[in-house]
Formats: sequence, C-alpha cells, structure tokens
Amino acid sequence: MQGLWCEAGSLRCRGDLPEPQAAEGEARVAVRLVGVCATDLALVRGYMGFRGTPGHEFVGLALDGPWAGRRVVGEINAGCGACARCRSGDPRHCERRSVLGILDRPGAFAERLRLPLANLLPVDDRIPDEQAVFAEPLAAALALEEQVLCLGAPLGGSRVALVIGDGKLGLLCAHVLAAFHPQGRVDLLGRHPERAAWLGPGARHLGRALGPGPAAGRYPLVVEASGLPEALAWALPWVEPRGTLVLKTTAERPAQLDLAPIVIDELRLAGSRCGRLSKALDWMASGRFDPRALIDRRWSLEQAPAAFERAARGGVLKQLIAITA
Amino acid sequence: MQGLWCEAGSLRCRGDLPEPQAAEGEARVAVRLVGVCATDLALVRGYMGFRGTPGHEFVGLALDGPWAGRRVVGEINAGCGACARCRSGDPRHCERRSVLGILDRPGAFAERLRLPLANLLPVDDRIPDEQAVFAEPLAAALALEEQVLCLGAPLGGSRVALVIGDGKLGLLCAHVLAAFHPQGRVDLLGRHPERAAWLGPGARHLGRALGPGPAAGRYPLVVEASGLPEALAWALPWVEPRGTLVLKTTAERPAQLDLAPIVIDELRLAGSRCGRLSKALDWMASGRFDPRALIDRRWSLEQAPAAFERAARGGVLKQLIAITA
Repeated sequence: MQGLWCEAGSLRCRGDLPEPQAAEGEARVAVRLVGVCATDLALVRGYMGFRGTPGHEFVGLALDGPWAGRRVVGEINAGCGACARCRSGDPRHCERRSVLGILDRPGAFAERLRLPLANLLPVDDRIPDEQAVFAEPLAAALALEEQVLCLGAPLGGSRVALVIGDGKLGLLCAHVLAAFHPQGRVDLLGRHPERAAWLGPGARHLGRALGPGPAAGRYPLVVEASGLPEALAWALPWVEPRGTLVLKTTAERPAQLDLAPIVIDELRLAGSRCGRLSKALDWMASGRFDPRALIDRRWSLEQAPAAFERAARGGVLKQLIAITA
Repeated sequence: MQGLWCEAGSLRCRGDLPEPQAAEGEARVAVRLVGVCATDLALVRGYMGFRGTPGHEFVGLALDGPWAGRRVVGEINAGCGACARCRSGDPRHCERRSVLGILDRPGAFAERLRLPLANLLPVDDRIPDEQAVFAEPLAAALALEEQVLCLGAPLGGSRVALVIGDGKLGLLCAHVLAAFHPQGRVDLLGRHPERAAWLGPGARHLGRALGPGPAAGRYPLVVEASGLPEALAWALPWVEPRGTLVLKTTAERPAQLDLAPIVIDELRLAGSRCGRLSKALDWMASGRFDPRALIDRRWSLEQAPAAFERAARGGVLKQLIAITA
C-alpha cells in the first residue's frame, strides 16, 4: 500500500509498504485525513531514532470490529494489556506500550493502519473530517485542565494563566483554559498576535514572543507550549510562588536550567502529554469548539514531503494530508 | 556584640557587630545554640552574593515581648505584612520578605538577633536546646509530607518513596516519610549506609550513592535532598509515570536537563523549602523524634570558622555553635 516512510532524516512517499495485519483484538482503519504534528517533524529529524511511518492525528473508516464501516478516531497508545498500569486503565504509561506512528507501531500517513479495537472511537455525524482530525491535539489540550485541577492550582483570580507559544498547541491550550475559566483572563505569548482573534473574548495576546528578562507580572498557571528548550528557563519567572508550570511539549535538546527558583518559590512543574479523545469528540459534537480555523493547507499523500517542509518552516498552522485509497 | 561576618567568600568572628535594633512588632533574642546548614555553606561560598551574618537554625532566649525570658525558636521568613501573600498568612513567599541570615536580615551566628514577634514560638521544657535547634530543618522535612499530600501523590504501595542523599536533610526526610507511611517502605541512596540505623524499621538504605544509569525500580515519590546539580537528571529515571519528584535543596549551579521524560511520563516536580516550626516542636515534645543522633560536634562562636570548614568537607553530620553571651 501507499504511505510515508521516514529513515535517516529523510521522508518519502512509497507504494510498497506492507499491509497492516490486525492482531487479535485489533482492527484495521482506512485512513482519510491526517494532521502533521510537531512530533512528526521531530521524528523526521531523528528524534528517538525513529524509522518507519509516522502519523498519529487521524480520522478514518474502520474496516473490522464493531465500528466497521464507520468513521473513527483512535487513542494512540496501545498497552500490553497485562501489566498493572494497563489493568488500572492507563495504557498510556504501560512500559511495553506501542504508540501509533511514534514507537513500534506504523502510523497514520498510509492508506491503512491497525490499532486495538479498544482504542477506536466512532465519530458523530455532526463532526466533519476536518474537525475530527483534531481530536488528538484537542484531547492533549483538554488533559491540561484535568491535570491542573488535580494539582490543585488555585485558578481563581483575574489572571488565570499564561500560555507560552501561539502555535497550534498553544492556541488549543489557551482556548480550553479560557473556556473553563470564563470569569478570568488567559494571556498568550508568541510571534503571531493576529491569531488571538480565533480565541474569543476570554483570551488576550500579549503581542510579543517569549524571551529572557524580567516578567511584567506573574501567573498561578503557566503553560509551556512552544517546544523551545530555552522556554522552561524563561518561563519560570512568570510563575507565581506556589504556582504551576505545565510542560506540554517535548523539547528535543536538553536545556540548561537553574533549579533554585523552583525550590525558593516552591513551584510545581507538571509534564502533560496525551488526553482522552472522547472528551474532545464531545466538545466538537456539541459545537463548543471548531478547530477548522487552525488549518493552513490540505495536501495529498504524494505531496506530504512538501507539507512537512512547509510545517517545518515554523509560523504556519496545521497541514492536513488527505488519503484516498 | 560578637558574631560571624561573611564577605567575599571569607568568614570570620568579629567583636564589633552592631546590636540589633528591634523595630515595632519585633523582639530581640539572645541566641544559645545555632546549627550550620548547607545553605550557610553556600552563602559563604558566595551564593546570592551574600554579605553579612548567616545563621537561621537557632534556639535562644527571648528578650522582648510576650515570650521574654523564655526559650524560643523562630520562623525565618519575615514578610512585609501588607501584601496579599502576607495577608493570606504566607509571608514565606512575600516578594519583599527578609529571611533570617539569608536575605536582608542579620542571622543567628551572633549573640543577639531580631525577628518579628509573630515569628517566635516558645519551646516546651521537655525539648532540650540540642533538639530545639533542629526545629527549622525538621519543619522543612515535615513540609514534604504536606506538599506531597496536596499534590495527590498516590503513596499506597509497598515502595513509598526514594530519598536521594543521606545527609542531614535526606535523613530527616526519610524519617518523616517512614513515620507517615508505616505500612510501606522508604529507600535511601547515599554514601553513608551506616546512617540508616538511625532511621528505624520503615526505611532502608540501598547501600550506594546516586549516579547516572538505569534505575532498578521506580517509585511514586522521589525526594532529591543531595543538593547536587546533576541529581535531578539522575533522579528522573527513578520516578514512576505520573509520579512526583520533590526538590528539597537549592543547587548553586545550573544543571543540564533533558525535559522529555517529564512530559512523556507526565511527571510532577515540586520545589519545597520551609515548613512550619510548630509542627516540628510538637513532634519533638511528644518524643516522636529525637534528632540528637544527627549531631557531629559542638563548637564555640570563636571556633565557628573551623566548624564551617569541617561541615564543608562533606560527609559529616550537624555542626552546632554554642553562643554564651
């Protein structure tokens, strides 16, 4: 079948990829639309020594199992099913997990993929493909709220949060936080003030990007969504004493960090990765959220290497790859 | 009066220090016994550009106010009293605070000091000076439990926690955690396996120090109490997915850190500094805790520079400075 293949820093479209063979408890999915994520770009650059077919933000048609013939999206982590983590309902942190298009499991930039049946979620007819393909990144943003609440961060005042980075993930995070805290204000730092228009009344763009230097004010919650290795050190002065800094992105390079402010101000740092897709689908089905303004361009599978190049230039919104078998 | 003076990396005992002048709402204290803390050593080495009289672990005799003539210990952070932080009962994070022997307030290595009346706590007669002088570091260890509970770390299983560093603070942290979780086990890493005898049955020394390399197992809670800049990077592989790493010490140098594991495993990091002295006094008055086995040597004020040198060699327990006016 046709699909992308990444190896030694190069990405190309091949016609000879092996058909996925669904194991017991798995289903095949005919992919319809896939989003290019910053993680995909990092994998192509060699992050985690990646070799294979990337892609994990998708919507497609289930070919097997109870959802056969229906549109589905999929949780990307597939646990072993047997360990304590999996049995407690958390395959996302199973030590033997595979991750769609990231770790030991061919990804969605191909005509077909396979996933455990339990990972698939049917997509409501009210959600077009161009929205459903955002289920995974929206779920990642929604996980933020769950995690912040569980950290007990006191988000009561007028300054609710600062989001660092106004790329796709930063915009999603700011949108979600503003929706959950309509009485407060969510501020955003980044190089694209014009994007704030998409966020609605609860969020404000500060009109500049993050850099080193003293903070004008501090926030109980700061969300790092820029992916810059330097961002963590720059972000710390923006966090109030006893406040929380959530790391939403994995920087590829190690960063130099002075830990003293974390101890002196008794800050909390929390890493945050994947969320639950069901919640994201609920948001989109109910019309609370329409991510289509985040789309930059739509490409074919053959054009995908060019789409990756455009995405890697930075400062652009979501590239979507349409796959027609 | 007599006291220590630290300037440009040197420490000496002087006889010409100015007498403390108690401001309104403050009391003077005649110091009796002071502990040498790792922070004191860092200040002498130039941390925070320190210049003045260090010392913040003390017991003394109140000279003014309602506790005049009684033995007291003291909370070390003195807030402005007017800001939102102070009004909410948290002068520890007041932006205009002074900190005894650390920031804008002469410390306890002197015949007399001054502190706000509200900072002083009378010491029960059942607690001898050699115990009371540990109120501040014990409170710092007790703060750990408060902070971990508030982070919602699930400390249920048989492996409760790993404490990194078997110096004074590490031992205190392990002791506190073992006392709070008698059904589980607290493990300790460091260069002094013989010190584990002091900890009691709930804690076990793993018989080696921290270093880079794969972890033999992971813990829901890891406490970094070694103060080594490298320790954070080494500690991360020991933390379970969704687990918590508490930083109890301020490293003086920035550290190189790969943040990806924090995001991938959705770890939580929490800085933890001062605790509440009242709880520490309760523990000691009730006989739950006797820190006297942590004492290495007792010195006079004139001998203090030699005591600092001994403390700085590392691998030794608490140096106490007795002050007799």
